[in-house]
Amino acid sequence: MKHKSFQHMNCSLAQALEVVGERWTLLVLRDAFFGPRRFNQLQESLGIPRNILARRLNRLVEEGILEKQSVSNSKRFAYALTRKGLDLQPAIMALVQWGDTYKPSPKGPRLIFTERETGEPIQPVKVRSTDGRVLAPNQIGVVPGPGLGK
Amino acid sequence: MKHKSFQHMNCSLAQALEVVGERWTLLVLRDAFFGPRRFNQLQESLGIPRNILARRLNRLVEEGILEKQSVSNSKRFAYALTRKGLDLQPAIMALVQWGDTYKPSPKGPRLIFTERETGEPIQPVKVRSTDGRVLAPNQIGVVPGPGLGK
Repeated sequence: MKHKSFQHMNCSLAQALEVVGERWTLLVLRDAFFGPRRFNQLQESLGIPRNILARRLNRLVEEGILEKQSVSNSKRFAYALTRKGLDLQPAIMALVQWGDTYKPSPKGPRLIFTERETGEPIQPVKVRSTDGRVLAPNQIGVVPGPGLGK
Repeated sequence: MKHKSFQHMNCSLAQALEVVGERWTLLVLRDAFFGPRRFNQLQESLGIPRNILARRLNRLVEEGILEKQSVSNSKRFAYALTRKGLDLQPAIMALVQWGDTYKPSPKGPRLIFTERETGEPIQPVKVRSTDGRVLAPNQIGVVPGPGLGK
């Protein structure tokens, strides 16, 4: 099935989804967040068909979101997040937190994200004003920027 | 094409993507963030086939992310975000900001999100510690929670 591309849309959300909105892509990135991962490790963790995993990984490497790193003393390599990939972290954490809230396990949170140094749980991701106040959706407006014109 | 469901995965990200990870779904929600929208308005804004839009909207209503509201003095209705839908805002804003950074328009930002009351631009969405410090990805750890067991 050939999808209509979002690439022509002059919208930053559509542009982001054109890259990370394919099925499995964010789950592949989830696994990359806790250290470089080899192909077989990803395949085992995700239970994803190998051809689809290969396609998703190639695309992520082409886009500069993952990079191949050699594994010491071997010809093998692992996939690691670049800066561009690491910058997806707030989006991924916000989706995880939404899933935890609205599709919870009856036994409680599945994973607890902590600050390594203190062991304290992190905050839920929120939208904030310049001076740091949490903003509700109805407090946020939008104005067209220079990039919106033709 | 029938997709393998993510529903069986005991992962909050997979659970979130099972609901909002279908193509178009986040773009439909984007349009709902700035006020209730009627079917034809959504169809025009998105350029999406009517049958796909209808399927996405029905799913979002079933999931309690959108609700139908009657439009005054008419038999028509509009789709509005519920609390559950509004809580997707940090995830959507984080994706928009990533798209703005890495898939920019050469002319500058496409949209500028502001705090309505002050007109000031909002902050980029970040992951923070309990006491409000911004955390980089390598400062964040994860421990299994009670919901991870069988």
